[in-house]
Amino acid sequence: MLEKSLFIRALRRQPVSRTPVWIMRQAGRYLPEYLAVRKQAGDFMTLCRTPELACEVTLQPLRRFELDAAILFSDILTIPDAMGLGLSFVEHEGPKFANPIRDVSMIERLPGADCIEDLRYVFDAAKLIRQNMPADLPLIGFSGSPWTLACYMLEGQSTREFKHAFKWAYDEPLALHLLLNKLTDAVIVYLGQQIEAGVNAVMLFDTWGGVLTPELYQTFSLPYMAKIVQALKAKYPTIPSIMFTKGGGQWLDAMANTGVDALGVDWTCDMAYVSRLVGHKVALQGNLNPAVLRATPAVIREEVKKVLSAFGSGPGHIFNLGHGITPDVPPDNVAVMIEAVRA
Amino acid sequence: MLEKSLFIRALRRQPVSRTPVWIMRQAGRYLPEYLAVRKQAGDFMTLCRTPELACEVTLQPLRRFELDAAILFSDILTIPDAMGLGLSFVEHEGPKFANPIRDVSMIERLPGADCIEDLRYVFDAAKLIRQNMPADLPLIGFSGSPWTLACYMLEGQSTREFKHAFKWAYDEPLALHLLLNKLTDAVIVYLGQQIEAGVNAVMLFDTWGGVLTPELYQTFSLPYMAKIVQALKAKYPTIPSIMFTKGGGQWLDAMANTGVDALGVDWTCDMAYVSRLVGHKVALQGNLNPAVLRATPAVIREEVKKVLSAFGSGPGHIFNLGHGITPDVPPDNVAVMIEAVRA
Repeated sequence: MLEKSLFIRALRRQPVSRTPVWIMRQAGRYLPEYLAVRKQAGDFMTLCRTPELACEVTLQPLRRFELDAAILFSDILTIPDAMGLGLSFVEHEGPKFANPIRDVSMIERLPGADCIEDLRYVFDAAKLIRQNMPADLPLIGFSGSPWTLACYMLEGQSTREFKHAFKWAYDEPLALHLLLNKLTDAVIVYLGQQIEAGVNAVMLFDTWGGVLTPELYQTFSLPYMAKIVQALKAKYPTIPSIMFTKGGGQWLDAMANTGVDALGVDWTCDMAYVSRLVGHKVALQGNLNPAVLRATPAVIREEVKKVLSAFGSGPGHIFNLGHGITPDVPPDNVAVMIEAVRA
Repeated sequence: MLEKSLFIRALRRQPVSRTPVWIMRQAGRYLPEYLAVRKQAGDFMTLCRTPELACEVTLQPLRRFELDAAILFSDILTIPDAMGLGLSFVEHEGPKFANPIRDVSMIERLPGADCIEDLRYVFDAAKLIRQNMPADLPLIGFSGSPWTLACYMLEGQSTREFKHAFKWAYDEPLALHLLLNKLTDAVIVYLGQQIEAGVNAVMLFDTWGGVLTPELYQTFSLPYMAKIVQALKAKYPTIPSIMFTKGGGQWLDAMANTGVDALGVDWTCDMAYVSRLVGHKVALQGNLNPAVLRATPAVIREEVKKVLSAFGSGPGHIFNLGHGITPDVPPDNVAVMIEAVRA
């Protein structure tokens, strides 16, 4: 059934009748029905860890909108949590780890990819979602990139300055490589198990790759993502992969040369330029400014048109935002955006 | 005297005996002697508003380090404060405006460039500094860019999402242009008065240009900076100008075509690439990752070398960080960096 999926076809740069669309964080706080389930779950990690609830919120946006893919509801920090760092979410502050990494011995003692067994709840959710969603719609699995996971594990929480992560990169590069290798092995197993559970494409979220220098990006982020993409491609050649480095607009060419099928493109990029630069090598996903969804319907329609025409008429475009949808977006505005893409 | 200044010569892309160096936020909280004056002043704005104190902290880093320029100590938000928005600084939270802009009538009622008269304390500080600093060292004046000032005026405080600013950009573009035009007129007068008071070069800090889409950048940030640069160039042809959009690595070519003398380059840019791209049109200032100053001396020396060799052997490089120095940097590490540049 999925051979006809517009999303899968676009990822393979095959001709499509119209541009497919999905939304980063489409199952999320902007939907009242999500907030109701979240309230029922009590806290965010319980929601992630309960397959029935994760399934329910994954399917919610599909009931409201004509989307071309679903994305597994989970968090990018499940792997560090399974490694024993103790993840929790503090209201308005984001994720926190009870046991951030503070020395090399902690990295050495981190469990290997075996810890992914503890993430059975993710694979159970993926199976349940796959069983309950339309057979002709693809389900996207995902993981944080090794560098992004490492940032949270080293900082212990959200940060703007990444003091710990940079300190390791400059003063303890071998230890950081050890951590990134462990994470890479774990992500390969994690995404492999998601594929075994039924996801039809995988996406790597490199939320913090864009804070790096070009050299650090090529040393500590990109090669590990490339290794993941290549390992999965060898084992699951039909499953397309998407790589998204937020703020990575200057490095798209290097990303396109990793063997990945598609690149996520944030809103700071000129889609016409990116399409000319790497559109012959990879599919492109994006890149409407998420802030457009707080504008008027007329502006939303106009800005959607601009993204579509900037990409051009060739194959290989998946419409999306340039970053995740924010909680304050009125769902009606999302409907306007999707209608405009489909029109 | 200043015709021999390495900094001024490099800005003009004239040959120099070695690469000049200064540091964004070189007068700041990483220096104990700054903290002492700050404590004496009581609060940050009193420090800015007292020419003797502003002069003292401007000169402090020159006593400690062999720097090739001083930068006037002030804040980028003096203009909105002079326009009546009521600036204050909340510890650990950054700037706050008591009266952020909430509707078009507030923009219409904003005072014009006459309000710059209220910033006499800035010009008095510039005069005092110029009198008290070595005659062969240049003094840099500066302003926030119109877009960056507008962001703070519309948001009322620091933000990651710029919800208000984007809302105006998409839904009320004419009102936003009115605000930006008022700010542009004010910045031209402000920097002109700084030049009259004795500053030898001017820099525009476009801290928030990098959060824009390429189209919004070309609509709401770059043209206003270009207008300022051109107006100052017409009136003060010998005063070089520097334009710095943080996160603007994708737009350096457009920036280089505004008539500006130099571009600030942040640490996410590949200096070798930027040098090839626009180094024949403008001088380049940057771009050591500020996080390097928290690394070991050996790493600092190595990373300084990389920036110098990436720029290449041609004229037109001013060594600097890719963003402001952070309060936790040990001053000894700054000395290591400066020695490495001068070596």
